[in-house]
Amino acid sequence: MRWNLSPDRVPTAWFNVAPHLPAPLEPPLHPGTREPLGPDDLAPLFPMALIAQEVSTEPSIDIPGEVLDVLRLWRPTPLVRATRLEAALGTPARIYYKDESVSPAGSHKPNTAVPQAFYNKAEGIGRLATETGAGQWGSALGFASTVFGLECMVYMVRASFEQKPYRRILMETWGASVVPSPVDEPDHPGSLGTAISDAVRDAAGRADTHYSLGSVLNHVLLHQTVIGLEAREQLQLAGERLPDVVIGSCGGGSNLGGISLPFVPEQDVRLVAVEPASCPTLTAGRFDYDFGDTAGLTPLLPMYTLGHEFIPPPIHAGGLRYHGDSPIISALVKAGRMEAIAYPQSKVFEAAVQFARTQGPVPAPETSHAIRAAVDEALAAKEEGDERVILFNYSGHGLLDLSAYDDYLHGRLTD
Amino acid sequence: MRWNLSPDRVPTAWFNVAPHLPAPLEPPLHPGTREPLGPDDLAPLFPMALIAQEVSTEPSIDIPGEVLDVLRLWRPTPLVRATRLEAALGTPARIYYKDESVSPAGSHKPNTAVPQAFYNKAEGIGRLATETGAGQWGSALGFASTVFGLECMVYMVRASFEQKPYRRILMETWGASVVPSPVDEPDHPGSLGTAISDAVRDAAGRADTHYSLGSVLNHVLLHQTVIGLEAREQLQLAGERLPDVVIGSCGGGSNLGGISLPFVPEQDVRLVAVEPASCPTLTAGRFDYDFGDTAGLTPLLPMYTLGHEFIPPPIHAGGLRYHGDSPIISALVKAGRMEAIAYPQSKVFEAAVQFARTQGPVPAPETSHAIRAAVDEALAAKEEGDERVILFNYSGHGLLDLSAYDDYLHGRLTD
Repeated sequence: MRWNLSPDRVPTAWFNVAPHLPAPLEPPLHPGTREPLGPDDLAPLFPMALIAQEVSTEPSIDIPGEVLDVLRLWRPTPLVRATRLEAALGTPARIYYKDESVSPAGSHKPNTAVPQAFYNKAEGIGRLATETGAGQWGSALGFASTVFGLECMVYMVRASFEQKPYRRILMETWGASVVPSPVDEPDHPGSLGTAISDAVRDAAGRADTHYSLGSVLNHVLLHQTVIGLEAREQLQLAGERLPDVVIGSCGGGSNLGGISLPFVPEQDVRLVAVEPASCPTLTAGRFDYDFGDTAGLTPLLPMYTLGHEFIPPPIHAGGLRYHGDSPIISALVKAGRMEAIAYPQSKVFEAAVQFARTQGPVPAPETSHAIRAAVDEALAAKEEGDERVILFNYSGHGLLDLSAYDDYLHGRLTD
Repeated sequence: MRWNLSPDRVPTAWFNVAPHLPAPLEPPLHPGTREPLGPDDLAPLFPMALIAQEVSTEPSIDIPGEVLDVLRLWRPTPLVRATRLEAALGTPARIYYKDESVSPAGSHKPNTAVPQAFYNKAEGIGRLATETGAGQWGSALGFASTVFGLECMVYMVRASFEQKPYRRILMETWGASVVPSPVDEPDHPGSLGTAISDAVRDAAGRADTHYSLGSVLNHVLLHQTVIGLEAREQLQLAGERLPDVVIGSCGGGSNLGGISLPFVPEQDVRLVAVEPASCPTLTAGRFDYDFGDTAGLTPLLPMYTLGHEFIPPPIHAGGLRYHGDSPIISALVKAGRMEAIAYPQSKVFEAAVQFARTQGPVPAPETSHAIRAAVDEALAAKEEGDERVILFNYSGHGLLDLSAYDDYLHGRLTD
């Protein structure tokens, strides 16, 4: 069962969770002075419209018409009830998922890449610089840049650049330039930290260039709230009540924020963050100010962190290998409004294959963390004889991650 | 602009073109005796329901409810108006495409894999054998087999098995067994011909096993007519008139047949088959009886053919590398009811990249043949100041074919 909405039902305003947070967020600090940042400190990197969104406390923010026109290329995304998975589990739970894999880049990332490219274009910027790990974010920004006629420079973690050429090709197909990072050390395998440093240096050094980030920041999560807003309307269309639990995988927090933030005001709706056991920021990290990158060039953010020098093991869910978390997500977890759980990747791929063999689509390794949690919720509901309503975010497809399935199916996957 | 239909609008009957053909099709001939085949000759390979569909002259054939339940996992597929491509071309034409890439396997192939698996299951068959080149058809049958609890054995052209592991992994994720073909000659690179021979031998030798073919045959094209039937309804929903021209790429003919056959009775609608210049069956082949495979094990079919020993060059559109054509498509071209054109692959990839940079999605190389023809129709309409309505089949995505784009973008593509 699927519920589609026509393109004219894309939400026309983003949902701002700021007024609904248990307490106002602590401000970001300057990396040099450790004093609270002002808008001018961020102006070399971001357009003013995004800086304003970063600190806005308005309950909603209108989406520009030019952005809506592009989002409507694939939005609203379908809401699907996973009836075949329910049957295989023998659960009385009703499992719904929001299918963000239908975007051109195959994930939720274009939801924020498009408005970021738009606001930069509107401010006269001609070029964007960003980092990417395996390429999900870089390909989303490459797509958005070609739509608005911007140049796009992507610093890609060298190990991925060399071993995972497919998303590099996808970026180039959309016209982006892609170089391996760190740019100055050709023998270094690179990390998200080195790539962020390269992109920030590029943007800071050129007047025509801004920096663009695909997760963590408040304005990124804001842009992703179209996911949860559409899902609420589609659940109504399906004749369904509010979900009992809303689930998303969590790396920096953007897909999780997108589906869950519009449900924050509903106190009876449980919110669940799912992370890898090998990079357990929310379940085993400390809440503290920390840098977003390894080199310490970015502002300090108040968040759960494993320390900005933590190097996560090379699990297949590359998008969840981040030492920190979104300040918004961190605040919700710290206040007890959101739960967090962690899974080893073998349990995650077990659920991914069960999903593929019942529902059809092959999910991204990141997305499969949310599937694992949804399956466990459905099994708990079966145990308790409970007609639980479960909603999770199907944040992306796994078609460019099939080597991970090869490892799992042939016993080469380690936790 | 997109037009979705709710899952209850999947057509409940297939459209049979047989009563609308200029003349009845010549019968298939037995490969040994060269006498017309009877149903019993095909019974070792196919279930009776499919054999009956192969020769039916009923105007429509009901789709079983169990098949509809599975098709509704992704159908109806969206109809999209390519307004951004139109704007880039500066054409007064209106370009629509039917997006078959949203299926679990990423192409139109599951439309027939699902009913084929269903009818075999209903006849008590427990195992299917088939061939696959790069893996589009094998992955579709792998998906359909897991849905109905059938075993699935795929003979994959050895060169693809070794060099293109991604679709092999996709098949295995859905539980299929995949072996390289030819099975008896480990040093042979294989071809579609050798793989068909392996699969037919497997099915003929085991009572629990049938053979399954992903294109060419009448029942395969029949199952694909859901594409054109939905498109007709969606064009009405869009307030659009009948298309002036309907376009599909043509290998064996199944995606082309799917979108075009429901328009055959409308004499004012032009139908266009697009093939690669390097495998020009319709534009440069002869109309004759020929075998479907290299070894001469299959029945002889009346079709356009380059000769069953023709080995097409290794172009990226592997799904269009077939020496023959569907008898239905061949008959329509022979009678002048359908046009045929051929393009070299450099022109095809040029259109594919233009599509990706305007509309977003990255198309399969096969699909890009149809895009090239749609672009040329739109440019001709511009030249003539003509508000032409163009409909083409977006038969599949190119996410597992990105190395072809890498070759094109870096000047390594040859015609």
